[in-house]
Amino acid sequence: MNDALKKEFEALVGKDNVMEGESDRFSYAYDAAVLEPVLPGVVIRPETREALGRVVKLCNDNGLPITVRGSGTNLSGGTIPKQGGVVILTNALNRILEINEADLYAVVEPGVITAKFAAEVAARGLFYPPDPGSQAVSTLGGNVAENAGGLRGLKYGVTKDYVMGVDFFDVDGELVKSGSRTVKCVSGLNLTGLMVASEGTLGVFEKITLKLVPPPLAAKAMMAVFDDMSKASETVAAIIAAKIVPATLELMDNFTIRTVEDFAKAGLPVDAKALLLIEVDGHPGQVADEAEKVEAICRRQGAVRIQVAKDAEERNKVWEARRAALSALARVSPTTVLEDATVPRSKIPAMMHALDSVAAKYKLTIGTFGHAGDGNLHPTILTDRRNAEEWKRVEEAIDEIFDVALSLGGTLSGEHGIGLAKSKYLEKETSRATILFSRHLKKAVDPKGILNPGKIIGE
Amino acid sequence: MNDALKKEFEALVGKDNVMEGESDRFSYAYDAAVLEPVLPGVVIRPETREALGRVVKLCNDNGLPITVRGSGTNLSGGTIPKQGGVVILTNALNRILEINEADLYAVVEPGVITAKFAAEVAARGLFYPPDPGSQAVSTLGGNVAENAGGLRGLKYGVTKDYVMGVDFFDVDGELVKSGSRTVKCVSGLNLTGLMVASEGTLGVFEKITLKLVPPPLAAKAMMAVFDDMSKASETVAAIIAAKIVPATLELMDNFTIRTVEDFAKAGLPVDAKALLLIEVDGHPGQVADEAEKVEAICRRQGAVRIQVAKDAEERNKVWEARRAALSALARVSPTTVLEDATVPRSKIPAMMHALDSVAAKYKLTIGTFGHAGDGNLHPTILTDRRNAEEWKRVEEAIDEIFDVALSLGGTLSGEHGIGLAKSKYLEKETSRATILFSRHLKKAVDPKGILNPGKIIGE
Repeated sequence: MNDALKKEFEALVGKDNVMEGESDRFSYAYDAAVLEPVLPGVVIRPETREALGRVVKLCNDNGLPITVRGSGTNLSGGTIPKQGGVVILTNALNRILEINEADLYAVVEPGVITAKFAAEVAARGLFYPPDPGSQAVSTLGGNVAENAGGLRGLKYGVTKDYVMGVDFFDVDGELVKSGSRTVKCVSGLNLTGLMVASEGTLGVFEKITLKLVPPPLAAKAMMAVFDDMSKASETVAAIIAAKIVPATLELMDNFTIRTVEDFAKAGLPVDAKALLLIEVDGHPGQVADEAEKVEAICRRQGAVRIQVAKDAEERNKVWEARRAALSALARVSPTTVLEDATVPRSKIPAMMHALDSVAAKYKLTIGTFGHAGDGNLHPTILTDRRNAEEWKRVEEAIDEIFDVALSLGGTLSGEHGIGLAKSKYLEKETSRATILFSRHLKKAVDPKGILNPGKIIGE
Repeated sequence: MNDALKKEFEALVGKDNVMEGESDRFSYAYDAAVLEPVLPGVVIRPETREALGRVVKLCNDNGLPITVRGSGTNLSGGTIPKQGGVVILTNALNRILEINEADLYAVVEPGVITAKFAAEVAARGLFYPPDPGSQAVSTLGGNVAENAGGLRGLKYGVTKDYVMGVDFFDVDGELVKSGSRTVKCVSGLNLTGLMVASEGTLGVFEKITLKLVPPPLAAKAMMAVFDDMSKASETVAAIIAAKIVPATLELMDNFTIRTVEDFAKAGLPVDAKALLLIEVDGHPGQVADEAEKVEAICRRQGAVRIQVAKDAEERNKVWEARRAALSALARVSPTTVLEDATVPRSKIPAMMHALDSVAAKYKLTIGTFGHAGDGNLHPTILTDRRNAEEWKRVEEAIDEIFDVALSLGGTLSGEHGIGLAKSKYLEKETSRATILFSRHLKKAVDPKGILNPGKIIGE
């Protein structure tokens, strides 16, 4: 960047917040996806929303590509910058602007940490349900940009279901307003809907209005142990067929169980072929009824043991173990590829069989866990990217996993986004017309193509 | 239309389905908004989805404006055609393509009647919650295009919350696919989100995938009678503050009560200054608890009488009376203007006071009822459009109602859309940049401007 332009950025955000040093550029060259790092030219950290808007305008005026970055937990390359482009950090825009208890909403800046927000909301006696695996470090802006999911998706929905409004800067730094603090709003095109999951390609979030709900009055968690994966995955479908929607309904295969137990020492049964971790919540009467029914279904489907958490501590221990799954698997090998193919939940048994076949066919280690209750599995391939021959098999296996998911009526990505990693597959799930329609939209609001170029729909 | 083009349309949909007669054109010149009728040039009724796509392409090729029409219950002029343009009827595209009980979704053509669909779903032991007032005749395609609300919005959300996917024709008649049959899906831009509430301005729906849920196990309805409107509207806020979210929480003022009773003979208390109609649902234990709490809150807030529905019949009678509100009010005067200004629910008392002042200031009769639980009121002005002097006061009153709603943090439209009627007000709620951003999107996917021109963002 030339000195004059650098001075302009410094005037907007302060000298310390314009970072061109090699270590800064390296720090923001990658995210949690298994993709090559790309070095940005400069890293900029606005401390006010007003400065954010001006930075966006200055970038556009100078044709500089922008990648906005929260905590970089993205799993599809959505926060990998353009070579020589600008990374805008949102971590200084971390204010909770309002928590409105009477009207059940909150207004936040994009850099607020998800778990911190959920805790603040809980302290007011309310509930923000979306709980992506990365919630301890992820930002709400990132969650909205990716439409992050989590463990509670099947009963409570995902981030999208809690976004009431988004104000965002267009490429000219002008503020576009959408949505409302009201429960119902149909004022204008649903730009809020469009911005959710847009991965930074259409605008830069200024502030976000989120829906809050009253918390459930009670909850009960249990672990069902199976000596056969098919029995476990068929139990998932049986629970939904009984018209019970648990708050969480998680599946772990034997490899994941052993790996997690080795890491987290939570007392998981390492001999089990599969585990279901189930939590029901709501009114105490409902919780009691549903827990009883779920237990009966698990037994009927052949669970060898069912363990109901006696108290909150025991319950938390199990959930912490589940949340540790990715970290535990990631310790095992140099490269961890966390996939996200998702199917209608009745197709979970078929998907699990297919994953077994893929692992055998390509001679790969695949640990599978995930949000079985909403059909969102995370087959995790443990590999070493430096091994070219093995990596080729990994890529072929991923292709086949996507093909199977689509043939079962599923989708390429349940909650991790398309980013750079899956962009080339998108047409297979949708159509040529879908890609072109999306590109027309993008081009219309970002004629110079500066907003997170290459993500979702290519360049 | 010239003969050659007419023959092309006839080849696509059949001779009987291309209607140019005066009575046909008059029949589709208006909708439920109080706006001047506009005569289309031709009315076309495709009987297959394939023909629908070809009609769209033929219109675009010939620069003919399209207005897609379900049942024409639109309240903001969204289905008023362009002078001389094409009205496409969806009433022959009325097939329910799939109801998937295992995976809790359904796939429908756009012309399926809302209540018919809800009944089919209920017959399978499932539940489709959105219940716009016009559900007995409205279509699902219209509901999605308008993001229709209804009585259950506060607990169950609106149409948007049940749309999992939309496949739609772009102006070239190519099929754009978005969303999925899976609970979670982040494959590509959220075009489904963008299409909801787009009022036919961006594409033509081919089929829609809708989310279903298990029905509540129990429900209890009650009517709380107040001798003072303030007490009733403050009770709404008190119920939400107690962290209870009823399935429905409806308000009626004295004028509406008397008018409805005169029409529906449901046994409503005609002396009451205000009524709250409240239904809680869910697990039987929850219903019992919440009903008890709601009753206690109503008493504490000064309800003079509370009547709990003894059985389903009594319950239905009250809800039918509430659903008759618009029809009842519409009988009173030649012109009925049903407004839709919406505020955060804690602002309902302030909004009710403001409506009183507006009625007094402009010497108008305003009956107010609506979905108080989600802040969505329907002040209904009874007037005669032929009375120019009075109509001027009506227009000034509407302007003032919008100003008040916005000043209370509300929105121009909760559930009736912007259409033609509120287009000129939209910038006041949002910003110039919002209008321009929206116009850029529209122009990008509809360069000739043939898709329902003039709606939402003007021309």
